[in-house]
Amino acid sequence: MTEVALRDTGAAVTRMLDTLLPRAEGPQARLFDAMRYAVLGGGKRLRPCLTVFAADLFAVPRAQSLRAGAAVEMIHAYSLVHDDLPAMDDDALRRGQPTVHVCFGEATAILAGDTLLTFAFEVLADPATHGDAAVRSELVRRLAAAAGGRGMAGGQMIDLMAETADLGEEAIRTLQSMKTGALLAVSVALGAMLGRADAAAQDALEGFGRDVGAAFQIADDLLDVEGDAAAMGKAAGKDAAAGKKTLVRLWGADRARCEAAALADRAIARLYPFGARAEPLREVARRVVNRQN
Amino acid sequence: MTEVALRDTGAAVTRMLDTLLPRAEGPQARLFDAMRYAVLGGGKRLRPCLTVFAADLFAVPRAQSLRAGAAVEMIHAYSLVHDDLPAMDDDALRRGQPTVHVCFGEATAILAGDTLLTFAFEVLADPATHGDAAVRSELVRRLAAAAGGRGMAGGQMIDLMAETADLGEEAIRTLQSMKTGALLAVSVALGAMLGRADAAAQDALEGFGRDVGAAFQIADDLLDVEGDAAAMGKAAGKDAAAGKKTLVRLWGADRARCEAAALADRAIARLYPFGARAEPLREVARRVVNRQN
Repeated sequence: MTEVALRDTGAAVTRMLDTLLPRAEGPQARLFDAMRYAVLGGGKRLRPCLTVFAADLFAVPRAQSLRAGAAVEMIHAYSLVHDDLPAMDDDALRRGQPTVHVCFGEATAILAGDTLLTFAFEVLADPATHGDAAVRSELVRRLAAAAGGRGMAGGQMIDLMAETADLGEEAIRTLQSMKTGALLAVSVALGAMLGRADAAAQDALEGFGRDVGAAFQIADDLLDVEGDAAAMGKAAGKDAAAGKKTLVRLWGADRARCEAAALADRAIARLYPFGARAEPLREVARRVVNRQN
Repeated sequence: MTEVALRDTGAAVTRMLDTLLPRAEGPQARLFDAMRYAVLGGGKRLRPCLTVFAADLFAVPRAQSLRAGAAVEMIHAYSLVHDDLPAMDDDALRRGQPTVHVCFGEATAILAGDTLLTFAFEVLADPATHGDAAVRSELVRRLAAAAGGRGMAGGQMIDLMAETADLGEEAIRTLQSMKTGALLAVSVALGAMLGRADAAAQDALEGFGRDVGAAFQIADDLLDVEGDAAAMGKAAGKDAAAGKKTLVRLWGADRARCEAAALADRAIARLYPFGARAEPLREVARRVVNRQN
C-alpha cells in the first residue's frame, strides 16, 4: 500500500515536472531540451515525495505540494548536472544514461543546471504554490539556505577538497549533513511549511528529515562499497578509488549498517504524534536504508 | 551632482554586498573567498544603482533597496563567472584581473556562481528586504524569470549557438533583449516593486529599463569595435573574431551610435512623470551610451 503511495506520488511528481518545465521550443530549445533530459530521465523522486507526504499530514492540496516538490527536485537535478561536469566529479553516466554534458556539451550542461536552479525559485514564488505570500517567501528563503554555501553547495566544496584531505568522523558528518542532509531535511520542512505546521510538528518533521538524510548518506556509501563487491571484477568502489573518506570506510560495513538502521528508527519514532497518517513518510525512511540502488 | 550620486550609490552597494556575503571562514572558506572575489573585485554597479534609484522615487528605505540591488548584482556576477568558464566564452581576464576560474579553478568557479545565484534569492526572500511578503515573493518571481530560460540564461544559450549562425536583425534583438536586456529591465522593475508603484509608474519604469538595456548592448558592441580600433595593433574586436553578429556589425558604427542615442532619449522621455527626482536614472541612461569602458 505504501509502496504504491511512493510509486504513484513519484509518478505524479514527474507529471508535474513535465508540466512545469518549458517545452523545447524557441531559439533556446537546446537549453530546455537539456533541462528536460536532466529532470525527466529518471530518479526515485525521494525528495519531492518527502515534501508531498509531509504536506499530506496537513491536508495541503496536492496541486500545491507537487509544485514545491518539483522545485526541490529541480534543485537536486541541477546539483547532479553540475557535480557530473568534467571539472567536478567527471561522471559520464548517471542511472545508466549519458550525463547531460556528454549529451549536450559542457556549456549547455552548465546553463541547464543554472536554469533549473533559477526556475525552482520562480516556481516556489508563484502564487499557484501557496495562497499566502508569507509562506511562499519562506519556502524560497529556506530552500535557498539549504542549497547554498552553508548547505548543499558548501558541502560539495568541502567534498571536492576532501578527496586529498584526511577527515575525521566529525568532519565527515559535517560534510554529509551539508551536501546531502540539508536538501533532504528541507524537503520535509517545505511540506510542513505549506501546511503551516505548529512549532512542535515542524521540529518533529525537520528532525525526521535530518535523520533520514544522515541514514541516506550512509546507505549511499554502503552501496558504493557493496554494490561494487557484488559486481565482481571491479577492484574497488568509486569513492575509495577517489580516496574519499566516508563513515563506512571509517567504521566498516557492519557498524555502518547498524548506524543507518538506528537513524531510520529514530526518524520513524519522531513521527509518533502523526499516527497512521505518517505511514508514507515511515516507508520512505525504511526504503532509504534498504535501497538497492 | 548625479555623478556623485552614481559613485556614492555604487559604493553603498559594494558595502552592502560586503556585509551580506559570508566571510571566508569554515571548511568551505574557499567557496566564500571565490564568491567575494567575483563580486567585490570591481564593476560599475549599474544594475543595483538602477534598482536603488527607481526605489528612491518612492522613498523606499535604502536599507531595503540596497539589499534588492545587491541581489541583482549577485545574479550579474554569477553570470559573468559562468560565462567566463573555459566551456563557455573562455575568458582569462575581466576588468584587468584574472577571472574566477583562473584564480580558483573551474570547479570552485562553477560552485561560486551557483552559490551567488542561490544566495540572491535568499537575500530577496528575507524579511529585511521588505516588510510585505507579497512584495518579497514577487521580487523573487520576477528576478528568477528575468535570469532564467526565457531571459538571461536563454539568451546566453542562443549566443553560444549564434557564433556560427547567421542571425538577422530581429534575431539579434531577441538574443540581446534576453541576454542583457532582461536583467537591466528587471533591475528597474524591482525598485518600482519595492515602492509599490502604480501600474502607470511601473510601466514607465519597465519601459525605461528595456530601452536602457537595448542602448547598453549597442554601446557594448560599439566599445568592442572601437575600443580595439583605438588600441592599435589588434586586428579586430573579440566579437568579430568569434564571428558574432551584432547590430553594430549589421548597421555600421555610425547608425549604431544614432540608434543607441535614440534609445537613451526615449528612455529618458519615459521618466517625464517623475520630474527632477528621476535625474539619477536619467544620468544612468546618459552614461550607458557615453561610457568608455
